[in-house]
Amino acid sequence: MLKATAEARGKGADLIVFGELATTGYPPRDFLEFRDFIRLAEESVDALREASTGIGIIVGSPTINPLPEGKDLYNSAYLLYNQETLHLQHKALLPTYDVFDEYRYFEPAKKYSTVLFKGKRIALTICEDLWNVGNENPLYTVCPMDKMMPDHPDFIVNVSASPFDYNHAAERLEVLKANVDKYQIPMFYSNICGAQTELIFDGGSMVLSPDGSVYDELPYFKEELRYYQLEDVIKGGYHREQPKEKIPLIHDALIMGLQDYFGKLGLKKAILGLSGGIDSAVTAVMATRALGKENVRVVLMPSAYSSSHSVDDAKALAENLGIRYDIIPISAPYDAFNTLLKDVMEGKPFDVTEENIQARCRAIILMAISNKHGNILLNTTNKSEMAVGYGTLYGDLAGGLSVLADIYKTDIYLLADYINKDQQVIPENSINKPPSAELRPGQKDSDSLPEYHILDPILYMYIEKRLGPQEIIDMGYDEKLVRRILKLVNTSEFKRHQTAPVLRVSTKAFGVGRRMPIVGKYLS
Amino acid sequence: MLKATAEARGKGADLIVFGELATTGYPPRDFLEFRDFIRLAEESVDALREASTGIGIIVGSPTINPLPEGKDLYNSAYLLYNQETLHLQHKALLPTYDVFDEYRYFEPAKKYSTVLFKGKRIALTICEDLWNVGNENPLYTVCPMDKMMPDHPDFIVNVSASPFDYNHAAERLEVLKANVDKYQIPMFYSNICGAQTELIFDGGSMVLSPDGSVYDELPYFKEELRYYQLEDVIKGGYHREQPKEKIPLIHDALIMGLQDYFGKLGLKKAILGLSGGIDSAVTAVMATRALGKENVRVVLMPSAYSSSHSVDDAKALAENLGIRYDIIPISAPYDAFNTLLKDVMEGKPFDVTEENIQARCRAIILMAISNKHGNILLNTTNKSEMAVGYGTLYGDLAGGLSVLADIYKTDIYLLADYINKDQQVIPENSINKPPSAELRPGQKDSDSLPEYHILDPILYMYIEKRLGPQEIIDMGYDEKLVRRILKLVNTSEFKRHQTAPVLRVSTKAFGVGRRMPIVGKYLS
Repeated sequence: MLKATAEARGKGADLIVFGELATTGYPPRDFLEFRDFIRLAEESVDALREASTGIGIIVGSPTINPLPEGKDLYNSAYLLYNQETLHLQHKALLPTYDVFDEYRYFEPAKKYSTVLFKGKRIALTICEDLWNVGNENPLYTVCPMDKMMPDHPDFIVNVSASPFDYNHAAERLEVLKANVDKYQIPMFYSNICGAQTELIFDGGSMVLSPDGSVYDELPYFKEELRYYQLEDVIKGGYHREQPKEKIPLIHDALIMGLQDYFGKLGLKKAILGLSGGIDSAVTAVMATRALGKENVRVVLMPSAYSSSHSVDDAKALAENLGIRYDIIPISAPYDAFNTLLKDVMEGKPFDVTEENIQARCRAIILMAISNKHGNILLNTTNKSEMAVGYGTLYGDLAGGLSVLADIYKTDIYLLADYINKDQQVIPENSINKPPSAELRPGQKDSDSLPEYHILDPILYMYIEKRLGPQEIIDMGYDEKLVRRILKLVNTSEFKRHQTAPVLRVSTKAFGVGRRMPIVGKYLS
Repeated sequence: MLKATAEARGKGADLIVFGELATTGYPPRDFLEFRDFIRLAEESVDALREASTGIGIIVGSPTINPLPEGKDLYNSAYLLYNQETLHLQHKALLPTYDVFDEYRYFEPAKKYSTVLFKGKRIALTICEDLWNVGNENPLYTVCPMDKMMPDHPDFIVNVSASPFDYNHAAERLEVLKANVDKYQIPMFYSNICGAQTELIFDGGSMVLSPDGSVYDELPYFKEELRYYQLEDVIKGGYHREQPKEKIPLIHDALIMGLQDYFGKLGLKKAILGLSGGIDSAVTAVMATRALGKENVRVVLMPSAYSSSHSVDDAKALAENLGIRYDIIPISAPYDAFNTLLKDVMEGKPFDVTEENIQARCRAIILMAISNKHGNILLNTTNKSEMAVGYGTLYGDLAGGLSVLADIYKTDIYLLADYINKDQQVIPENSINKPPSAELRPGQKDSDSLPEYHILDPILYMYIEKRLGPQEIIDMGYDEKLVRRILKLVNTSEFKRHQTAPVLRVSTKAFGVGRRMPIVGKYLS
């Protein structure tokens, strides 16, 4: 922020705007409960204030509530100028749903005021403060801009930390437009950019003219500094929006999610198991595009139940990508376990136990290479499997980061096609063959699950739309199937409790935004 | 509740009081976002209303906010009587901290009224509504009882879902007394009893006389129905409190936590690995006391690095408990992996990789028996290890439920002594020998960690008290050690993200009540 401020000052900017909680990153989560952490945030604000000679700096940071009553902190935005705090506005509307926990930490603002800066009056708002406009079912009973309008502000500034999902850019645009349509003044909307564990912040900062048109929208998944003249924005007539297609957005979001997960942990190298199927193939491509081919290695671990083409398809992909691959068959340790466990298995027939042993032998191999050489294991599970618990805990559900587990299988195919759009990266065969875990002879996913084009819409209605069984049945789906699937989702909650963070690209991802009781009786 | 109501009516009770959200269980978490789930809760209230002939029933349940503004639900308490809803009060103070997420779902009440029932005026409150009294740093800016007192209520009823920690009973008593001292009327406080995944609700419902004395306190960890005459309570002079000693409370809480985790999943049988050390020994005892010796089996899995007495100590414990044990050495699969991985290990020396392979071989064995015979694997990690990441992901950190991971090692010793108080259950040697993971020759915990009597207080200050490094150093601890330990805690966040739910017995447990960024830079 200091560097950007210096650059902006050099270009003669009057005002530079950063994002919500930009001093700490978003969300800081329970770090906010440490006074020591808040002190560090305050030191960052102090440094920016020192750097504010001749240029106004708007920046989000937590501040301490001076009153004993209420939560100890506010989620605030500063306007710093000429070594002083010209204005401090707290956030009023505190998102506490899905991935958001703001009322866990912050007291809502009850006072709203505007600020005069270089002859212009600014209505300074923080993210959600603008989101109670244009909804039929508003979450809050107050609307901060309504309170500020009597001051006749010249423009709105909003500092945001609004995470990506494949619908979000369009939804955000609608909300911002609804505000400008209502208040008829221009808006400068600044959203943070970068991924934090599972949350991907896409940037896409925007400037809107008072007529509600988008004067400019900054690129997604990229930090950038752009300059605007207020008079030009007011005049309007210029219009630039970013494309908002679902699959390309997901593709780019995953790359940023991967890069920032590794980057913020200070690590570079990934490893994953390549089965010859589509999920691990797509994961390998995304990892290679995010981290570079020199930083990705894969392991092919055939068993007696692997088809011959699986190894060939996996090899072909690795060669297309130019990444290192090793072939390590799992029969030796698998046989060793079977021999060792013969007595305690009490002669019971081959079942999911033996399937799981295979998957877990593979996890041991991958984790051993990970431990010895410092690669993070990437998990390759998709959202359909993750939803119904079709995966082995401590086996194929292992990994430090789950790349695809917020993408239904039917969308994985679209993503594979998008990857292959210019040239064949993923072998045709990996895309076209019937999905199989290859853990017993001739096994196919469709032996235990309905076809994905039937499964996925039911899961979507239950997970994203929170519809109950009867509502889904009423849409024309088979009752027995619906009840079986929802039961599978609910009884596999214990597995999802123990899996890696999932890069979030949908409106309802497994992880911090979906909180379910493990021992709940509902639909289980 | 129908059964209890019938019993109470039979005994001539005027009023029966249940707990907060008693129709759904607490916390229902995101089930609350399903209209279908709310409908089921409403059906339960309907059934109770039908059963309210001649007896008032106070029960907590979610209700729908009729206004479009604000959250869609209230956290409410009904007074049902003679097939009607006599009164409906919503909760005003919504705990949203630690394990609580209430503002995620509920709109806070803004209206408060009392209700006349059989000639007496009742101030009906819900859990946290009473918790803003007697605090120097109140979390809320309103106090519902202050608003109700102008009605001159005859007594307070509070329906609660207040989870156990080893300090909680004393703290709860203080808060309730502060209310009675302030308002000078008697109180009937009803708390739910039973465990939900990681949260243990201890009951301990209470009746307080207007002079602030405890008229009666119901047992902890046990559902019970007791009867009181209002005049007797007002008169006072009777006094019964439950004992509140830390280690016995933890012991009993773990038993209820285990029983309800298994019971609510509809499962009976547990399995765990027994190392000969104190943690797995204590876990085996708790499991046996909770589930019965016929439902617990253990596996001893020595390696080349296990000491001879480890197997003997583990055997002795299993025999003391009368539980089945199997001895399955891990050398065959461990050797198979080492041979298989020889090339990809590239001649690098023995390190944590090989330690982890051993721990993961054990997990495969335990999970195989678990899968084949339907036992839930119990995790035996303690809080000190869990804090610093001293454990193998998909190895000894595996399991469906973590029994001891909210108890520091120094308290595990006290718990072992308490278990042995009447007769020697856990062999002396398991308690007295220096802690060791036995994953390399002559290994001891103290090779890589400070002694637990030094480690645990630092962890407590950081985790439970949320003190920063400087504050802990200022208490007299070595700076280098403090920084090293806090770094270990923060950089092992990724491991805790993938572990089983932890039975919560302290004020700050790993799990739903402690939310940390995995890629955070703070102290890492």
